[in-house]
Amino acid sequence: MALKLHGAPMSTCTTRVMFCLHEKGVEFELVPVNLFTRENKNPEFVAKNPFGLVPVLEDGDLTLFESRAITAYVAEKFKDTGYDLLRHQALKEAALVKVWLEVEAQQFNPAISPIIYQYLVSPLRGGSPDQAIIDTHKEKLEAVLDIYEAKLSSTKYLAGDFYSLADLHHLSFTFYLMVTPAASLINERPHVKAWWEDISSRPASQKVMEGMTIEQN
Amino acid sequence: MALKLHGAPMSTCTTRVMFCLHEKGVEFELVPVNLFTRENKNPEFVAKNPFGLVPVLEDGDLTLFESRAITAYVAEKFKDTGYDLLRHQALKEAALVKVWLEVEAQQFNPAISPIIYQYLVSPLRGGSPDQAIIDTHKEKLEAVLDIYEAKLSSTKYLAGDFYSLADLHHLSFTFYLMVTPAASLINERPHVKAWWEDISSRPASQKVMEGMTIEQN
Repeated sequence: MALKLHGAPMSTCTTRVMFCLHEKGVEFELVPVNLFTRENKNPEFVAKNPFGLVPVLEDGDLTLFESRAITAYVAEKFKDTGYDLLRHQALKEAALVKVWLEVEAQQFNPAISPIIYQYLVSPLRGGSPDQAIIDTHKEKLEAVLDIYEAKLSSTKYLAGDFYSLADLHHLSFTFYLMVTPAASLINERPHVKAWWEDISSRPASQKVMEGMTIEQN
Repeated sequence: MALKLHGAPMSTCTTRVMFCLHEKGVEFELVPVNLFTRENKNPEFVAKNPFGLVPVLEDGDLTLFESRAITAYVAEKFKDTGYDLLRHQALKEAALVKVWLEVEAQQFNPAISPIIYQYLVSPLRGGSPDQAIIDTHKEKLEAVLDIYEAKLSSTKYLAGDFYSLADLHHLSFTFYLMVTPAASLINERPHVKAWWEDISSRPASQKVMEGMTIEQN
């Protein structure tokens, strides 16, 4: 039975999981959840994820939420299928993947997500971008990207000279950043720019990105 | 050779790793880093972690940072030693541990950490607690704890009827919450309170908590 992924192609957390499923070549059915009608807050959905957030993955009788937990589960369950995103046979490399997964979650994500929200999501909800929030978080993101620039000048990817789940977790938000004026933060840093061009041009990345759009439909 | 943990016993991220090392019964040397003199921003420390944050774990020639990556590494490397924090032999249970690890990182931590900062850290830096920040985050934390209360009424621990790394990751911040007026958020929820009393009374938890204090020394 194919995996069921409940989510929306415009949701960064849903696409985070989709990038992973495509890299692993795992079949799945995308069950659309309408975020504009707040379908994710319906009792039926909340029974699957008490936080009322997409995505949710159903694998038989197992129900999982939190995108980063889902990707870790998929990457581990299907470790011998498709691309090895965890370097599971090399303890040290696997440890460095863990480090940069946490850097994404704890340093990159809190800096970039308010920028995307202000530029792209807020207008959909009838608001306008709050420049003060954008500026504060651009400064934080620049500090993070300066460290990425140094790291990527010595290794091709974040955890080493191999693409991993740590790089993959950056795809969703960076894709949207590139259509905002803050794309310059990536473009001004040559190693970060080359890394972005590399990871975003992978066939699995391209496949998901084709469907990514922030629109009410 | 024993593991070297660079950090400070008052740092919640350092103690997060210490709880794990004690559960696993793994020997380690704590190398103190003075946060008040900003030793963590010295070039020697920044060479170990470019973000200039504690803790850092050195295991031979492997240098790791980000507390949650370190605990995951320790729990996996020493999976057959001490208490099994990952349920590594049961794929479904292991997947649920991953889910609740991410809930801690993405939902619980962003809500609780500003409360602890305002009540306990800000005064040490010559400031006074900002009640508006406390109130906003108390509201967020209450919403998270309501979900925990429901979950813990059906299973003894977050990921199921077994203690796991997901519970352990909550120890550091909740320990400090309990010495603030916001302790009521735990005490008012019977299942959360029972869970807290259980996980905080484990021998490994007690051992680390003896040394936890927010003081300049």
